[in-house]
Amino acid sequence: MRIALGLEYCGTSFTGWQTQPDGRGVQDALERALATIAAAHVGTIAAGRTDAGVHATMQVVHFETGATRPETAWVRGVNSNLPSSIAVLWARPVAHEFHARYDAIRRHYTYLLSSRAVRPALLAGRIGWYHRALDVALMTEAAGALVGTHDFSAFRAAECQAKSPLRTVSTVSVTMTGEHIRFDFSANAFLHHMIRNIVGALVYVGAGKRPAAWVGELLAGRDRTRAAPTFAADGLHFTGTEYDARWELPPTCRPVVLPLA
Amino acid sequence: MRIALGLEYCGTSFTGWQTQPDGRGVQDALERALATIAAAHVGTIAAGRTDAGVHATMQVVHFETGATRPETAWVRGVNSNLPSSIAVLWARPVAHEFHARYDAIRRHYTYLLSSRAVRPALLAGRIGWYHRALDVALMTEAAGALVGTHDFSAFRAAECQAKSPLRTVSTVSVTMTGEHIRFDFSANAFLHHMIRNIVGALVYVGAGKRPAAWVGELLAGRDRTRAAPTFAADGLHFTGTEYDARWELPPTCRPVVLPLA
Repeated sequence: MRIALGLEYCGTSFTGWQTQPDGRGVQDALERALATIAAAHVGTIAAGRTDAGVHATMQVVHFETGATRPETAWVRGVNSNLPSSIAVLWARPVAHEFHARYDAIRRHYTYLLSSRAVRPALLAGRIGWYHRALDVALMTEAAGALVGTHDFSAFRAAECQAKSPLRTVSTVSVTMTGEHIRFDFSANAFLHHMIRNIVGALVYVGAGKRPAAWVGELLAGRDRTRAAPTFAADGLHFTGTEYDARWELPPTCRPVVLPLA
Repeated sequence: MRIALGLEYCGTSFTGWQTQPDGRGVQDALERALATIAAAHVGTIAAGRTDAGVHATMQVVHFETGATRPETAWVRGVNSNLPSSIAVLWARPVAHEFHARYDAIRRHYTYLLSSRAVRPALLAGRIGWYHRALDVALMTEAAGALVGTHDFSAFRAAECQAKSPLRTVSTVSVTMTGEHIRFDFSANAFLHHMIRNIVGALVYVGAGKRPAAWVGELLAGRDRTRAAPTFAADGLHFTGTEYDARWELPPTCRPVVLPLA
């Protein structure tokens, strides 16, 4: 039987999604918990392989198991075996053809940034930081160049393993609420460090270090060495994946919401 | 010279505000950082002695020092010597008569609660949890009985050291945003565990375990043993203290704004 899960996690204490020899990947913690419920090893595949320190409000995972368990076992049972920073939000049997990664139509990420003079403390590890106010209108203008299908080599980590640097970005939006700035990204998929590199470039523009047109020039130049530094993982949240309705999944997207006081 | 500070912290990894022999109080970390800047021991006094695991968006602190330093040293200098979960937001010289605790006119706290079926993961340690939906109208009705000057013995921890159980509560409000509930409290001061005990009682009402009138009856009964369990520290945020304008302090209140998933 194939089961799909919706997973939430705080990435601060993990080495990223992917299983690691030291067992400190989110995948390792999840597979240990699943094995307890399934009474057998369970291998998992996720919609997106988040980096160390990156969070997820909604990571979709699938696995194959011979164990027959009620849905509550895959949610509450697994949760009682997971560390407090990971939780299964829902579990649902799916068609055997479903693949959390290959069937993803579009992925969504939000980068949260604090732009106050003093570094964040209450949200340390959960939000990025730039020490002064940023011009949202300029960043929005700069972000426009990124929408569409482009070669994103300029924003790609040296260690990126993707076969092609082409990605189709459908949304890059920048909004400010008080001292918090959120960057929302949607694309068919993202290259390694692509969002954190783009945020770095947009912050350079927002701070007046570069003109808005520079982001489009960087993209066209396809040269990572000319871009801005990679921003910290702290503020990055994987907020969901879109799939075809025929898979009949529970909600697979879950925005980060900033409720005002 | 007397200096006032505005402090933000995540209480998760501390034993509470107060200095402890093992040095794991927020006060210990702050005094170590201040000593580095002042090149001498610095004793601090805070507006409120938060418990283990309780957070502060704004804790006001004062201290006396012979060291003459620019304000930036008391902010950026101290911050560079603090752990990432504590930050000084502002520093200001104040009149020698100012006392962060005794001059407090009113204190504000917010308790954040997740009321979804699955425990919080991304905000583990930063938000409380009750596993099902709560009736906000009933909780609001119940909370009305708490406003005013009352003997709060029913909501007082056995180890509370306050001389009098009388407190003047000016606000108890309950609001819901999606699956998140926030309880806002204002009073001249609070007894030990008073807010967490009140939240426990309000949740009993919201869940339909007790009628709304029960909270007023509990209060009148002044018997802690009849009340609901103390709620977890995780969701409790100290959000500020009001002082007379003559002290000319920077903002001493700061509502909690969490990017909630």
